[in-house]
Amino acid sequence: MTRDSAGCSGEDGDVSVVYDLAAECTASDVEPDTPYLAEINGIVEYGIFVDLSDTVSGLVHESVLEGTFGVGQELVVELEEVRDNGDMAFQPVDIDLEDDEYTLEPVDHEYPLTGTDRLQANVGEQIHLEGEIVQVKQTGGPTIFHIADEDGVVPCAAFEEAGVRAYPSLEVGDVVRVTGTPENREGSVQIEVDGLSTLEGDDARDARDRLDAALEERAQPHDIEPLIEWPAFEKLRDDLREVATLLRRTVLEGRPIRVRHHADGDGMCAAVPVQLALENFIAKVHEDTNAPEHLIKRLPAKAPFYEMEDATRDLNFALEDRSRHGQQLPLLLMLDNGSTAEDVPAYETLSHYDIPIVAIDHHHPDPDAVGDLLDAHVNPYLHDEDYRITTGMLCVELARMIDPDLTDDLRHIPAVAGVSDRSKADAMGQYVELAAENGYDETRLRDVSEALDYAAFWLRYNSGDHLIEDILELSDADETRHRDLVSLLAERSRRDVDRQLDDAMDHVEHERLESGAHLYRIDVEHYAHRFTYPAPGKTTGEIHDRKITETGDPVITIGYGPDFAVLRSDGVRLDIPRMVSELEEELPGAGVSGGGHLVVGSIKFLAGKREAVIDALVEKMAAADLDEALSSAAPLEN
Amino acid sequence: MTRDSAGCSGEDGDVSVVYDLAAECTASDVEPDTPYLAEINGIVEYGIFVDLSDTVSGLVHESVLEGTFGVGQELVVELEEVRDNGDMAFQPVDIDLEDDEYTLEPVDHEYPLTGTDRLQANVGEQIHLEGEIVQVKQTGGPTIFHIADEDGVVPCAAFEEAGVRAYPSLEVGDVVRVTGTPENREGSVQIEVDGLSTLEGDDARDARDRLDAALEERAQPHDIEPLIEWPAFEKLRDDLREVATLLRRTVLEGRPIRVRHHADGDGMCAAVPVQLALENFIAKVHEDTNAPEHLIKRLPAKAPFYEMEDATRDLNFALEDRSRHGQQLPLLLMLDNGSTAEDVPAYETLSHYDIPIVAIDHHHPDPDAVGDLLDAHVNPYLHDEDYRITTGMLCVELARMIDPDLTDDLRHIPAVAGVSDRSKADAMGQYVELAAENGYDETRLRDVSEALDYAAFWLRYNSGDHLIEDILELSDADETRHRDLVSLLAERSRRDVDRQLDDAMDHVEHERLESGAHLYRIDVEHYAHRFTYPAPGKTTGEIHDRKITETGDPVITIGYGPDFAVLRSDGVRLDIPRMVSELEEELPGAGVSGGGHLVVGSIKFLAGKREAVIDALVEKMAAADLDEALSSAAPLEN
Amino acid sequence: MTRDSAGCSGEDGDVSVVYDLAAECTASDVEPDTPYLAEINGIVEYGIFVDLSDTVSGLVHESVLEGTFGVGQELVVELEEVRDNGDMAFQPVDIDLEDDEYTLEPVDHEYPLTGTDRLQANVGEQIHLEGEIVQVKQTGGPTIFHIADEDGVVPCAAFEEAGVRAYPSLEVGDVVRVTGTPENREGSVQIEVDGLSTLEGDDARDARDRLDAALEERAQPHDIEPLIEWPAFEKLRDDLREVATLLRRTVLEGRPIRVRHHADGDGMCAAVPVQLALENFIAKVHEDTNAPEHLIKRLPAKAPFYEMEDATRDLNFALEDRSRHGQQLPLLLMLDNGSTAEDVPAYETLSHYDIPIVAIDHHHPDPDAVGDLLDAHVNPYLHDEDYRITTGMLCVELARMIDPDLTDDLRHIPAVAGVSDRSKADAMGQYVELAAENGYDETRLRDVSEALDYAAFWLRYNSGDHLIEDILELSDADETRHRDLVSLLAERSRRDVDRQLDDAMDHVEHERLESGAHLYRIDVEHYAHRFTYPAPGKTTGEIHDRKITETGDPVITIGYGPDFAVLRSDGVRLDIPRMVSELEEELPGAGVSGGGHLVVGSIKFLAGKREAVIDALVEKMAAADLDEALSSAAPLEN
Repeated sequence: MTRDSAGCSGEDGDVSVVYDLAAECTASDVEPDTPYLAEINGIVEYGIFVDLSDTVSGLVHESVLEGTFGVGQELVVELEEVRDNGDMAFQPVDIDLEDDEYTLEPVDHEYPLTGTDRLQANVGEQIHLEGEIVQVKQTGGPTIFHIADEDGVVPCAAFEEAGVRAYPSLEVGDVVRVTGTPENREGSVQIEVDGLSTLEGDDARDARDRLDAALEERAQPHDIEPLIEWPAFEKLRDDLREVATLLRRTVLEGRPIRVRHHADGDGMCAAVPVQLALENFIAKVHEDTNAPEHLIKRLPAKAPFYEMEDATRDLNFALEDRSRHGQQLPLLLMLDNGSTAEDVPAYETLSHYDIPIVAIDHHHPDPDAVGDLLDAHVNPYLHDEDYRITTGMLCVELARMIDPDLTDDLRHIPAVAGVSDRSKADAMGQYVELAAENGYDETRLRDVSEALDYAAFWLRYNSGDHLIEDILELSDADETRHRDLVSLLAERSRRDVDRQLDDAMDHVEHERLESGAHLYRIDVEHYAHRFTYPAPGKTTGEIHDRKITETGDPVITIGYGPDFAVLRSDGVRLDIPRMVSELEEELPGAGVSGGGHLVVGSIKFLAGKREAVIDALVEKMAAADLDEALSSAAPLEN
Repeated sequence: MTRDSAGCSGEDGDVSVVYDLAAECTASDVEPDTPYLAEINGIVEYGIFVDLSDTVSGLVHESVLEGTFGVGQELVVELEEVRDNGDMAFQPVDIDLEDDEYTLEPVDHEYPLTGTDRLQANVGEQIHLEGEIVQVKQTGGPTIFHIADEDGVVPCAAFEEAGVRAYPSLEVGDVVRVTGTPENREGSVQIEVDGLSTLEGDDARDARDRLDAALEERAQPHDIEPLIEWPAFEKLRDDLREVATLLRRTVLEGRPIRVRHHADGDGMCAAVPVQLALENFIAKVHEDTNAPEHLIKRLPAKAPFYEMEDATRDLNFALEDRSRHGQQLPLLLMLDNGSTAEDVPAYETLSHYDIPIVAIDHHHPDPDAVGDLLDAHVNPYLHDEDYRITTGMLCVELARMIDPDLTDDLRHIPAVAGVSDRSKADAMGQYVELAAENGYDETRLRDVSEALDYAAFWLRYNSGDHLIEDILELSDADETRHRDLVSLLAERSRRDVDRQLDDAMDHVEHERLESGAHLYRIDVEHYAHRFTYPAPGKTTGEIHDRKITETGDPVITIGYGPDFAVLRSDGVRLDIPRMVSELEEELPGAGVSGGGHLVVGSIKFLAGKREAVIDALVEKMAAADLDEALSSAAPLEN
Repeated sequence: MTRDSAGCSGEDGDVSVVYDLAAECTASDVEPDTPYLAEINGIVEYGIFVDLSDTVSGLVHESVLEGTFGVGQELVVELEEVRDNGDMAFQPVDIDLEDDEYTLEPVDHEYPLTGTDRLQANVGEQIHLEGEIVQVKQTGGPTIFHIADEDGVVPCAAFEEAGVRAYPSLEVGDVVRVTGTPENREGSVQIEVDGLSTLEGDDARDARDRLDAALEERAQPHDIEPLIEWPAFEKLRDDLREVATLLRRTVLEGRPIRVRHHADGDGMCAAVPVQLALENFIAKVHEDTNAPEHLIKRLPAKAPFYEMEDATRDLNFALEDRSRHGQQLPLLLMLDNGSTAEDVPAYETLSHYDIPIVAIDHHHPDPDAVGDLLDAHVNPYLHDEDYRITTGMLCVELARMIDPDLTDDLRHIPAVAGVSDRSKADAMGQYVELAAENGYDETRLRDVSEALDYAAFWLRYNSGDHLIEDILELSDADETRHRDLVSLLAERSRRDVDRQLDDAMDHVEHERLESGAHLYRIDVEHYAHRFTYPAPGKTTGEIHDRKITETGDPVITIGYGPDFAVLRSDGVRLDIPRMVSELEEELPGAGVSGGGHLVVGSIKFLAGKREAVIDALVEKMAAADLDEALSSAAPLEN
């Protein structure tokens, strides 16, 4: 508490203010030039001794005294000096308690605060701490208030009665003062609460200002040099800094984070580094050693967008965690997905809950659709760049802004991400060189990318943390195992692709379009192995690549199933999103939907209208001009 | 122990009974007019001092004594008086221990019992308690006996050796006396056991009678006024009371409850209120604060009946809980399903285990098939009523019988249930009015119903407790969020239905039957979007409704897939269950099965016989007379 | 420490060795005929008192002394005698510390070791123990080292700072000496560590030798008589003993075990007994009462081989358990699967991790493919026997080698396994008799087999421990429930099969091959109920059996779906694996794969090539000679 509030009443002008120290006040509560109420407790030859509180007392020298005094009599004094030995001397203030008008202002003891950074050093001793409640977990025993101050978050256990909510009026978001004793408990420092009270008025405002300022400062990401110089990338740096700040702030506020990412190579190169960086930061901020496990969870998305099913499941878990553990609802971090209109239904469902959403993506965005629903949106298209800046490249820098100590481990990741997404970015050369310094030549990069693909398929929609870390050589991955594992998985992947293509190639139908482009079609339901690796999207892509090698550009490839088709094209001026829109209009009742990039995409339709849709599609493709520059570099979505 | 048993031997007539107090007996065990064996421990001028037990002793005044006595000599006395200071005076009884024939009847110390309702007040002090063992959980440390007395269930920890079963002869169902000390442990009162013994003979009989009487009384449901006056409903009230009693008794006996319900709007309106009521009652009965979480679980059923897969899974979990936690096997509560022959295989599998089954349903029942397998069966058809009394309407009253405090929260639920199941009950008006009083107009009711449908689809077969509570505005749902969420989900649902129908309507085939009815057919496999909302059943229903609006009655709609069809009809005298039976006979080898209500249902067949089955079906439909009264009000099953 | 190492330096010849007891040495460290460094601490009339360590001191009698001595002076002594009261007498050794050349050899205190078998008796008292670290689990509080000595494995809790790794240099595999206090903690004896140090040099070598020898001995399986005399089986006994040793050693080393087995009757008859035996052995070895739950897990395999998806999931869990609980990676035990080339991709993925793999199988093996990947491989074909020795028969003996106390419970299991797999082994008669002694006549055996099949289908890929134990009458299964449950499930199974066949039989196509064999074909996708019991494999098998009964041999049956066919043949000289190989070559681009036994198997192909594949297959079958001896006894795989 400060003197401000008391000082205010001085503005009344005529009425004097006399401060009355509470019994527990100590010398540190006494300020100069301030009138205090005192009581005489002794009279000696050279003066009188006065008490200002139980422990604050001192001499008023006879030289400054006038009149006569008796023990027990009250008077007003102010500090004259504090001697070297700590003794205090006071002098009378000219206020007559009997005759003058004055206001008596009580002064509480200002407790010295012990920040969460000094708890371990104060285990077993009573301390005071001010902070904001970020989680209230009712256990069968005590109520656990997680409290964030300038330095971190600490669990504080308050016991009312077994299973009964202690301090029921206190809620998440309140700024409080805790008096209690830090103890080591199940591996964490926890404060056993002796008292807990809301700060009110100025005290609250001051504390909140102080906390906000500290949080603001701690939320600042690290100022790092990007791994490579890349002008195109520079345009996105500020956006990434903003997200880094938001994520760090989220951790500091004790809010959980849910990461959903595209279940492919670039998606994993994006999500795993950010996950590691956030786990490290959470461990730094939270006294509770289990906090990293409880506060961040990563899961691949089931579809190449945020499905209603995923969102419903995420929301359901979040509500349960709130109800069981008193956690705040999480921030949702979408990586390598989340920029398109297909994400809107899921986002809107979450929008009725306190769940901030951040998307970092390099797929063609629909900012009109998602803009209002996102708290932050990073996407190269928003800066006239494109998919060639992959999400993995972006997120490696994001991870480093959150925890720069990861830098050495991450040097090869942007190259892996780029190879996975076939990025033709001008910076790929630099990334590949960077990777080479870490021992990753192009073969190894391709192997890692292929291994990721293969592992992601078999993991289905499990996060597979350790396996992916071994493949990416992150965390504590053993290098030999990493190398062996990557070789094996990459080889398996290629063998399975070969096997698929050996069988499928005979059934690819060929047609020469008027434009001169080659058109290939394959019925992946009937002429590819189902429910195994590679899935239809990759199968189509691999056929396409072989046909380019065989025939040279221009090539269009269509892989179709009962109610879907995947499309790849090189050397032809296609605009798949526009074609899909046209088909939607031209073929009412065919249930056409889909999209993608200019020359790579997918389309869905009613099974009963397949022939009509594919015929119309081919007609459009036949009418398209050739354009050598257009290449289906970006990956297909399934 | 009471005197009854001892008193019995008095009936022998000639033989006297002398009571012999056990060493630990206290003054409270001494009853007037009862002869006790005593031993002289002192002789004074004015009489002799006798001991009846370690702590019961007193004076026999010389005035009532005859003859000579020596210390250590035994005699028979009875209570003369208890003085104000507690001293006891005895007088001799005329039984000569040496010459007379008598029976010596031992008297145990009658411990004062402390019921589970007074444990918190006796924390830290040794108490005695009698009750029935309802669960025996062997932990790595002590053995935890959950013991139910007249007032509740308390965990009692007995320690023999780490991980070793204490009192191995004691089993669930035994009536025991516990001596121990209540302690607060992990948020619950738990008794640390000093001693635990089975009651035998009369003691056991008495205790069990007392416990049974108390349980009987506590199991009684609350006497509530139904939310509305509705004569048809009255017929089912006694059945519901019986179920309420059974469920409350199940809780009092410490048996877990597994709720399985139809995964639709009415099913959730039925299951969630009952779940909340039971959780509240469990919390009241059990000292263990985690009991509600451990003792009731709700899950939607995968199929519109109780599938073998669900039953196998439920049984498997139940056996595991018994083995790991010593829990009793659960009671299975089927809601809005469970009345039909399709449930029999699953029921029969459970019937070999101690798993009572209760069904509350409003689908057309097959009481001959399920009757013997159910411990209770509530269904309007059993009282000549029908599906218009929805399960949600029934279960709201059931929930109120279990916990009437829920009443205010539940007023709108019957109307939501009715709207969800398109109930044309005469009472719908009253329910809608009741909902209106709570701010639910018809639009909002339809929105909630639509939102439930949509959420249930995306939750797949998760219970989604909090999300559903938010939609139904139950538990601690925030009203604003509830409203926003419901609007959003309802709107999404309608948009998805519109999208589906926009595409599908073009492919609906029309035919005018001779009867004048319109017949519409749609191949939902080829002309509707698959694996998304709305599923084939709802898609067909929505097409049907639109066609009624377009053309007016009479209308029949068939939505078919490779091996199934869903059927809806309005204004035609169909009897789908009979048609299915006929097809089964007329088309042997077509694998026909199915059923439903008169004018709404579904049918399955072998994929290779689709054409034959649907042709035969249409033929039957064409031959059916018109009947304006018949409307496909009830919902389709998938 | 032993004297060996010190003794070695004696070999140097000229240089004397003087031993210097460490301060903490006690009388037990003093050996006869060994020169020790001593210090004089007192001089009396009859001799001098010398100290050899803090607690070892004694008299050197003046009669054996020459020269003069002062307190503090050092000399060399050896033990003369230990008196009855424990007093020690020494005599001087003729080594002059000032003039003679000698080597000073320090002697550490040899702590008396308390084995894990005597911990309970020493609760609360400090003990010493030597063993190998088998698991290091970092908790939020202490670090838990699981340490294996000659007698068992005990958790040892070392506390550095909350959540901080104690003794960070110690790893799994190190041999250490623990000083600490056994305490009862959560039901287990756990040692609270006072000190923990690696053994070095000779100490380590000695300890490891001792531990290895003890482990070797304890790993030895029990010497049991096989349940029946069966020469064919004898050939596999040594292989089984080797696996029993390996599994027991795995338990002793604290490594977890993951069991994957064929999800059919024989697979469960194999896996459940081994699981029970290992659980019992783990409970015996580990002080931690939760060890059986943590260290062995059984799961049915999804496919009739070890799928990449299962392997990825197993690996992922194993890595997580290592990371969270410091567990070693598990041993994988494949039962009734695992011998074929189809298992190779999964095995190779695991091969980069420390995961030993053992397979016990009776399917036709491909030892060239799997040989190098397996640590042990038991298969009758490796000994010129065949599938008639079922895996269940093998594993019952294996289970008995691990825990012979199970014998009485397991007598009927081999017969159940044999009936399940239709084994025509010559020993079936003996097994059936053995089962009969336990009350299992042939009807009951068939019922159990049928019930297993039915339960396995509905359990999908859950282990269903208790349900399966009830069906097999293992563990604590109640006999009445077992009988009722088996009857019910067997009856259900037969009823469902009948229903399936009633519908399907009309659609079976018949053809008389030139060889005179009957060929039956059924399109199980279109003419059998899908996604329900019985699945296509069993449906085809049952049709085949009925056709044999109807027409007598020879009969071939093909049940085909869109991209697969299951094959059964009796009385025809087929060689399905060869036919599949031929088709692969003759029909490039048809994606043919598959296999099985000679006359029972399955084949996969591209959906679009079904007709071509089946036509070619039938052509081969038509060309096959008849051979009465060949019967499709073994079960189909799905």
